[in-house]
Amino acid sequence: MNTVDALLFDVFGTLVDWRTSVTGQLQQYMQGAAENIRYPAGTDWEAVVLDWRDCYQPSMEAVRSGKREFVILDVLHRESLITTFARHQITGFSESQLDVLAKLWHTLEPWPDVPAGLLQLRSHYTLAAVSNGNTELLKNLSRHASMKWHVCLGAEPARCYKPQPGAYLYSAALLGLDPHECMMVAAHNSDLQAARALGFRTAYINRPTEYGARQHEDIGPESDWDFCVESLEELAASLVAELPLRQQ
Amino acid sequence: MNTVDALLFDVFGTLVDWRTSVTGQLQQYMQGAAENIRYPAGTDWEAVVLDWRDCYQPSMEAVRSGKREFVILDVLHRESLITTFARHQITGFSESQLDVLAKLWHTLEPWPDVPAGLLQLRSHYTLAAVSNGNTELLKNLSRHASMKWHVCLGAEPARCYKPQPGAYLYSAALLGLDPHECMMVAAHNSDLQAARALGFRTAYINRPTEYGARQHEDIGPESDWDFCVESLEELAASLVAELPLRQQ
Repeated sequence: MNTVDALLFDVFGTLVDWRTSVTGQLQQYMQGAAENIRYPAGTDWEAVVLDWRDCYQPSMEAVRSGKREFVILDVLHRESLITTFARHQITGFSESQLDVLAKLWHTLEPWPDVPAGLLQLRSHYTLAAVSNGNTELLKNLSRHASMKWHVCLGAEPARCYKPQPGAYLYSAALLGLDPHECMMVAAHNSDLQAARALGFRTAYINRPTEYGARQHEDIGPESDWDFCVESLEELAASLVAELPLRQQ
Repeated sequence: MNTVDALLFDVFGTLVDWRTSVTGQLQQYMQGAAENIRYPAGTDWEAVVLDWRDCYQPSMEAVRSGKREFVILDVLHRESLITTFARHQITGFSESQLDVLAKLWHTLEPWPDVPAGLLQLRSHYTLAAVSNGNTELLKNLSRHASMKWHVCLGAEPARCYKPQPGAYLYSAALLGLDPHECMMVAAHNSDLQAARALGFRTAYINRPTEYGARQHEDIGPESDWDFCVESLEELAASLVAELPLRQQ
């Protein structure tokens, strides 16, 4: 593993707990919202958020398949929110209120092991966010959650969504690295599968509570990934043990 | 100034002292080089580096004018080095040796005020490198010199070189910001002129020794830039004094 120069991080679910974060923010927003906004008594806000997230893959698939031009994830999140609110009979939002809500994904909390884990890895590796989130979203997450990546890459600079090859390959190219010099770190087997097929190293982090009670996938590694760990700190310990100390 | 969200940093000359850094590294390389490499006794290595740097603007101009397709700065640096070595009768390099030398620009030392200044600014602003250097170069500079930008933007993602408008505007767009929400920070009047014309705020940092004895430009501010300072720490003090404390 001492030829690995860069760790490429998936973000949603791998580094941040979007389910709890978005649910909490949405509840808080609704409690303070003006009278124009209406929703059924007893609305299950976590179910709303999970339904919002269920639109994620289909919304990107429209771009991947070529049905529509590349648009950034903020745009897809906003469209999916409108669909989700309609389904749950949540009504009365202005355009600017929808703009604000679509960006709840910019202020997510990291899993507890993440800040310390990234700090431990940062002195040994290049840390790159390789996410389907757009650059502004990643920058805001970095500021909000103190995730000190060296660079924010992924879908927006590549103008295509994972697991399409370009999202991984262009990220490596921007770093001046070959795939085998990069390790994709993700909580999703499909993400690692796509990266491995292109020659990237792989590390699986188990996040079995990402979707809460609705989680039926990614409850464990489904292949012989190079590393399979329970936390970023465990990954740091495993990787660094194999490495001579490098300069900052 | 409390509407400014992001500081966009020029890098060469503004944050790092390329002249001293490249000269020192080149001298060290030549002292340890194999016999195949030959150069005239008494070669003035700083003059070699300044001549190398003199190729910088003309090499980018070929891209700006459309004479050639966009190529990253590493490619231009390598070509310019070959031209410069020929001029100084420095001979005998292999292709891989030229690859290494072209990347001396990846490991430059910051001006003394930079690490602390960036740290002070980081808790109040988004910090973005907006340089003509390619992403790999910026990432390596960030690691080498501990310059903790949130994002590395500029020429490579924009696929055009400053002072062309796209290099500034695409950087702002990736951050989801309007030009007036961004402040370009540079030691070069021409860089600020181009940014201001597009609606960006401007901060001039005086670096009168950037080119050593050969410096005839940028020995002071040539316009009423929003800020004119002698160091990044002075900029931090000036900016933060005008701001309510922001989160992280």
